[in-house]
Amino acid sequence: MKARIQKQIEFILEIDKLKHILRQSYLLQNLRRENSAEHSWQLALMAMVLAEYSDESIDLLHVIRMALVHDIVEIDAGDTYCYGDQSDKSQKEQAAAERLYGLLPDDQAKELHALWMEFETRETPEARFAAALDRLMPLLLNYHTQGQSWLEHGVRKDQVLERNCHIAEGSKELWDYAETLIQDAVKKGFLLE
Amino acid sequence: MKARIQKQIEFILEIDKLKHILRQSYLLQNLRRENSAEHSWQLALMAMVLAEYSDESIDLLHVIRMALVHDIVEIDAGDTYCYGDQSDKSQKEQAAAERLYGLLPDDQAKELHALWMEFETRETPEARFAAALDRLMPLLLNYHTQGQSWLEHGVRKDQVLERNCHIAEGSKELWDYAETLIQDAVKKGFLLE
Repeated sequence: MKARIQKQIEFILEIDKLKHILRQSYLLQNLRRENSAEHSWQLALMAMVLAEYSDESIDLLHVIRMALVHDIVEIDAGDTYCYGDQSDKSQKEQAAAERLYGLLPDDQAKELHALWMEFETRETPEARFAAALDRLMPLLLNYHTQGQSWLEHGVRKDQVLERNCHIAEGSKELWDYAETLIQDAVKKGFLLE
Repeated sequence: MKARIQKQIEFILEIDKLKHILRQSYLLQNLRRENSAEHSWQLALMAMVLAEYSDESIDLLHVIRMALVHDIVEIDAGDTYCYGDQSDKSQKEQAAAERLYGLLPDDQAKELHALWMEFETRETPEARFAAALDRLMPLLLNYHTQGQSWLEHGVRKDQVLERNCHIAEGSKELWDYAETLIQDAVKKGFLLE
């Protein structure tokens, strides 16, 4: 039987691979796409800074822990583009969660797996707020790169509204902010009408 | 006067630049160097997984918040290599902290600046543990890339021991683990005697 610490270190080394998983969003400077590890960092920091806008009372540590683990499954399942085909996303991600969190000692494997499931199902205040931020962040990057990723994929305003409207389930104020950005993006030609 | 939310969003957009700050450590796969944003994510996750090894009782949220903000000053000050010249590091980082945290509303600017100072001075249990992890992580990456960064810079075992011995101030058990890695790295030729 492997020592507890050995399993924990193996997990930490395995998740290094998330630094190679590219998302569709571009960084604000230069033209490379962002990876899921740096995205997860920015999301966790966003939770620290914007926590006051959650409509429900939240445990910040819980939100941050979800932000930190929410994309780890992409190491095996890849990043699924939110405006693309999502048909086998769930099955691939379930298998990935089993393998990746399963590297940890049992108690921690269960704990992190549950955090990821909670994020996915959005049934708690913390999950609704974390998911709201996870939508707002790429929207900010898209807007401030003149819609680079939207235009590349021919994404339309109605798709962005439909995809992002559940920001309102976590925070009415952040959804107001997001809606204004979306309207303005159309006006400026960053997003198709 | 800018709206509070506008200042918070500007800060979140400004810290996107941390994704361009390269450290000396290499990723485990492929040969690119890691950036400080993805490093900060891995450090925060490491705190979640290894919290039980802190010798003192710690507030995990506090440790994670420090991990998330600890490298933001590098956006202006750059990454200072820990085995290189550190003479003007402190002055440059102080100015960077003023500007970067200063983008936030006053209350949050003070809060995040204080978190960074706490991390730097290592006078609380949370800061000692966060700093221990911040040493252990590059050591793990160095060891598991056959000492790539150590060998490139001609780093010697006594330098690594001196630089990393304050892991023991946060966790005796993690320091034992680190010492074993260092000894083994010398044996395998990853690190100069």
